[in-house]
Formats: sequence, C-alpha cells, structure tokens
Amino acid sequence: MTRTISILGATGSVGSSTLDLLRRNRDDWEVVALTANSSVAELAALAREFNAQIAVVADESLLGDLTEALSGSGIEVAAGKRALCEAASHPTNVVVAAIVGCAGLAPTMAAIEQGCIVALANKEALVSAGEVMTAAVAKHGATLLPVDSEHNAIFQCLQGNDITDVSTITLTASGGPLRLWTPGQLAAATPAEAIAHPNWDMGDKISVDSATMFNKGLELIEAHHLFPVGLDRIRIVVHPQSVIHSMVEYRDGSTLAQLGPSDMRVPIASCLAWPQRMDTPCERLDLAAIGELSFFPPDEDRFPATRLAREAAQAGGGVPAVLNAANEIAVAAFLDGKIAFTKIAVTVEDMLTRGNPPAAPGCLDDVINLDAETRSHAAEILELA
Amino acid sequence: MTRTISILGATGSVGSSTLDLLRRNRDDWEVVALTANSSVAELAALAREFNAQIAVVADESLLGDLTEALSGSGIEVAAGKRALCEAASHPTNVVVAAIVGCAGLAPTMAAIEQGCIVALANKEALVSAGEVMTAAVAKHGATLLPVDSEHNAIFQCLQGNDITDVSTITLTASGGPLRLWTPGQLAAATPAEAIAHPNWDMGDKISVDSATMFNKGLELIEAHHLFPVGLDRIRIVVHPQSVIHSMVEYRDGSTLAQLGPSDMRVPIASCLAWPQRMDTPCERLDLAAIGELSFFPPDEDRFPATRLAREAAQAGGGVPAVLNAANEIAVAAFLDGKIAFTKIAVTVEDMLTRGNPPAAPGCLDDVINLDAETRSHAAEILELA
Repeated sequence: MTRTISILGATGSVGSSTLDLLRRNRDDWEVVALTANSSVAELAALAREFNAQIAVVADESLLGDLTEALSGSGIEVAAGKRALCEAASHPTNVVVAAIVGCAGLAPTMAAIEQGCIVALANKEALVSAGEVMTAAVAKHGATLLPVDSEHNAIFQCLQGNDITDVSTITLTASGGPLRLWTPGQLAAATPAEAIAHPNWDMGDKISVDSATMFNKGLELIEAHHLFPVGLDRIRIVVHPQSVIHSMVEYRDGSTLAQLGPSDMRVPIASCLAWPQRMDTPCERLDLAAIGELSFFPPDEDRFPATRLAREAAQAGGGVPAVLNAANEIAVAAFLDGKIAFTKIAVTVEDMLTRGNPPAAPGCLDDVINLDAETRSHAAEILELA
Repeated sequence: MTRTISILGATGSVGSSTLDLLRRNRDDWEVVALTANSSVAELAALAREFNAQIAVVADESLLGDLTEALSGSGIEVAAGKRALCEAASHPTNVVVAAIVGCAGLAPTMAAIEQGCIVALANKEALVSAGEVMTAAVAKHGATLLPVDSEHNAIFQCLQGNDITDVSTITLTASGGPLRLWTPGQLAAATPAEAIAHPNWDMGDKISVDSATMFNKGLELIEAHHLFPVGLDRIRIVVHPQSVIHSMVEYRDGSTLAQLGPSDMRVPIASCLAWPQRMDTPCERLDLAAIGELSFFPPDEDRFPATRLAREAAQAGGGVPAVLNAANEIAVAAFLDGKIAFTKIAVTVEDMLTRGNPPAAPGCLDDVINLDAETRSHAAEILELA
C-alpha cells in the first residue's frame, strides 16, 4: 500500500538519505512536499524526480528561480516560512522533519499538529522546545519517531516492552577525536583537529559538538523528553567504535542494545517502515571483522558538556534552550578561531549561571525569542572576552 | 493477579533459580506442582515452603520417603514417569520444563499439550524432538519461551518485530576454556581442563560441550526450531566475555542484541514475567567496568561441532537426535578418561555418517527409542575403539 510522505529539508544530509531510500522503494511512497532552504536547482530536480505535489524554498527571494525551474511540471511552488509550515501541514502519513536549527521549529510543529508520524531529525525541537513539542505531540496524537541514531536505537530497544519496566537508558558516545587529549592539549585544539570525527561524516558544527561532548549533552536532553524514565536513569558511556548506538536496561537485568553501521539510512529506514522494517543497501555489521568494542566512563572534568546538559535538563523551562543557543554561538566563535576549544563549555556555563533563569517558554515563539536573545547575549560576551 | 506455575525439575539449577525468583515475589505466584528426580528431602522442603499442591519424585522407589516427608502437609504426593506427566498436565499458567535429558521429553510434551506457557530449559525437547515438539506447540496453542540465555536473548530481540523481517540471527559463543589451544593441545586436553568454563558455573557435561562447541551446535539446532528463519541465516560468533547473549539483525541493517550478567535468573525472569518484566536481584551490567567486548569467527577446523550440528539440522528427521545421543556418550567416555577430547567430535561424526540416516521420528517414543539405540551403538563403537 502506498504511503504519503513530506520531507522538510530535502536537500540536507537526512533529506538526501531519506530520498535515497524512497528511490529504492518508489512504488511504496507518494511524495507530497519537499522543502529546501536555498538549493533551488537540487530541490527542483528532486521534486521532478519524485513527482512531488509541492516544492517549497525557505528563502523567499528564490521563489522566481524555483518557479522557473519547475515550470511545466505541474508541481505547486511556494516560498517563505509560512509556506514551509503549510507544506508541513499538508496531510501525509509521514513527515520527515529535517530542517536544521531554530528554522525547523515551526514547520516541525505544523507537522505534529496534523497528528501524523513525524520522523524527527531537528535537534532544537526537543532540546530547546521539548516541553512545548511533547505537549503538542500528546494533544494532536502525533507519533514522534527519532531519526538520530542514538534515540532511534533506544526506540527500537523499547519495542514490545513497557517503558515503566526500564531501569536505565544508556546513550553511547564516541568520545570524539579529542577523547584522549590532556586538558592542556584540549585548550590548544584547532578547529581542524576538533572536526575530525572518527566514525561519522558530519557537518562542522556537530563534529565540534562531538568533540566537546555537547552533542551527547543535547542528546541527553532529547532522550529525557522522548523517553520519560527520569533524568537520573539516563546514563552515558563512551564507546569509541560507535557500533552500539544505545541501550536500554530493564528491571530484570536484561539490556537490549541496537547496533549497526554508521549509516543514517538505518535509523531513517526504521522510522519510514515503522512498525515494520524495510530493506536498505547499508553495510551489514560483522562483529568478528570489527573484533573489539570498548567502553569507558565519561570524563566530565575534561568534557563538562554532559554535566551542563544534565543540569539544564534538570532545571527545565528555558534553560536547555539557553544551553543550545550559547553552545552554537561559542562553537561558531571557535570555528572562526576567536576562542579556544575549552572556552566553548566555559561560555555555555557562564550563560547558564548569569542572572535569573529564563521564564519557561509557553509557546514556540517564546522559544524562538529566547534563542535569539541568548545568541546576541552570548555574542556580546564573546566579543568582550 | 496471582498466576499458577509448575516446575518440572525443581531441585536442579534452573528449578532453584526459578524458585529463588518466586520466593522474592511470593504474592504473585501459586505453585501447583514441583518435581524432582531423586532429591526427596529437598523436594519436600520446597513443596512445604511454597505450599505446592503436588510433589512428584521420578524415582518410584522413593514414593515412601516422599510420602513420609510430606505427611500431614496436605500436599498430594506421587512418583514415577507417569506421575511426572500428570503433574505437567495439571492446568497452570506456566510450566518450567527443566528436567535434564531424555527423561524430560514426555513431561515437557504433557506441558505443551495443556496449551500453557512453557518455559523450556530441556535441550532434548528441541534438539532431538524438535519437529515433534514444535508440531505439538502449534497444535495445542502453547507458548514456548526459551530459558537458555542465548535463545532467550533472541526471543527478546524479536519482541515487537516480525520474524519475516529478520535477515540473520547470531548466537554468541564463549568459545570455552580451550578456545586458543592448538590441535595438538586439544588432543591432550584433560577433563579438568575442559570443564573450567570461563563465564558460567555449569555441570560437567555442559562444560565439556562448551569446550567442544557442541553446546553451540545444539543451540544452533534449537534456534533453528524456535526461530524459523532458515539455517543459513543463523550464524555463530565467538565472544569470550559472554556479555552479549545473542543478536538479531533485521533487513534494514539494525541489529538488536540482548546483554546481561551471566545469571540464569535473568532469562528465567524474562520467561516468568513475559510479556511484562519483573524485578531480579541480579548484578547490573556495567560496560565501562567490563571495558572490552571481543569477537572472533568460529574455527570449525579445531572445533567441528558447529559444522556437524549444522549438517544434522540440515538433514533433519532423526539426525539431530543421533548427534545429541552420540555426543552424550562420547562426553561421558571423555570424562571417564576413556577417549581423547578431540575424539568426541570424531565419534559424533562417525555416528552421523554410519549406515543409512535414521527414519524421522513420528512421535516422542520414536525419539526416545532412537536416543537409546544411538547410545548403545555409540558405546559399542567406543569400547571397540
């Protein structure tokens, strides 16, 4: 039976991986909307290839280009933030919410509000707007399926089980390329050194987050919203090979783990086919060939990010949004050569402990405003520093 | 809600572990029948402690002793093979089938025939009588839950999934204490060396099976009956730490694994509480403390048992029963100092390739006869050798 799907952020990494899977299973899927930030030519080519009903570019100034690129195709064309939300609202079985950053919040919310399956790849939806989003999921009867490999692993390990039987959830962390560096070496780490991720091919921002462990910190906050077992039951273990993507321990002492290749098409396929499975062309796990999996406790002295994230999640309200925005500004400053690697966590902690805690966001606009305020505040601080 | 349970083989290792769990959850369980082979005093004490309805001793000559030991308790007493089957037939929610060897076949079948949940710890039921037993399970609508840690792991990894989505099942094997021995060393291995299992505290016979890899071969045959994905999709990987108990790979490239401490109470609890979970006092997994998990391909030149088992499973019919019986006789001869360690597999292969393949057993009696014939035949051969 054909199912309908929209992809918000179709030209990004998750969008491309999703389309690769749809391409291999063309008869199973009907594409409703595809959106992109600014890659008009690529978006138009994909819309034509998949015979999409709607193509939307976020940058309004590119409406003319998109219209021209799709002329004669019969595909509906639109541009701008509002059009993104309208595309997300268009009834479908599945929406893949893969727009990066705060720009993805409103379209993700629009998808949730139609009550469909939302395959969530936008981190901010749960990190910065976790309480607002999960309330919307409950209200509209949407099904949130996590695309992130760690959360998808946990989700898989929970299938056929009751979350009240969970004793702990363990997120695995590669530990990043600087895992074994001394504090002195970390202080002098360059952007090139920090973005050399051992297992996954990712963008610069997320690679730095992996090196600082902020990535794992943000995932801790997301896990806290996705899997309500209590923060004290969510653990982190450093696992440099990234073969075990995460684990769930039950009260009988059984631990279920999901393992796989470092290929985002595996968790995406899990979301697309859920509650069934679908074929993927991904490499198969061969543990005898890998030979060895190793595990270490996280070192929160050298890598304070997970401690900060846990504190932010514990505080709740607007605090995780501040952590996320402050981290983004600090990472950008680090990548620009303006601050040291170790200054990223210092900046975030500084922002978290300054003044009064922010009011809990009551809606998405509150989150977006808090995000913007934190960014300008963090930027100010870093220029002073 | 209270559930009813009978334990066939209450004084053995699995029986004791089961009763340990029931003892911690007394209000949840009502014990119907407890059986033992010959440990009358222990059986009587357990029957009194758990206020069982029925206590049965397999050895008929001990009926008087059991009657005396339970006099005044109001507990029904019986003895003999037929009484074991009657006890297994007594209506319950769960029967734990933990009688070792061929003696467990008929009582296990009686439990299956009452259509309840059968927590299966008797290896012969699936190795020697797999086709007969699985047909009975289907006919009587029983639910077979595997107690063996590997099969229980696979069962857990299949929860919430469809077996048609499985691409491979991987049984993990510790490799046993002689894993790294050369062929020359293996030929000279003593019983004491062969029974020194690194991870589990087990009886001599099963410890030798672990050293020869016949244990994994028997598990392969069991897995083939429990999880009908095709023999070619069932793999073995050597994993000396025995932390991952087994794995299931799905067609999307996701692998689910069950991990845990080497404590039989974990899989037993999983069977008792299924489809829920129950608390156990078992040690919790701490991967950072364990540090490292390693994996190797099996070496079927030094350890031919898994190849022989795969061939026996492929042949089907009576062949796996021959493999099992021949192995038992050969292991006993090895433990008695009569044959070399490496002669165990040679004997089994010899028995498998002699004469015409046995007729497929049509019923349990055929299995029991074939088992007895093979034993006497193997004993003959070994006395000649």
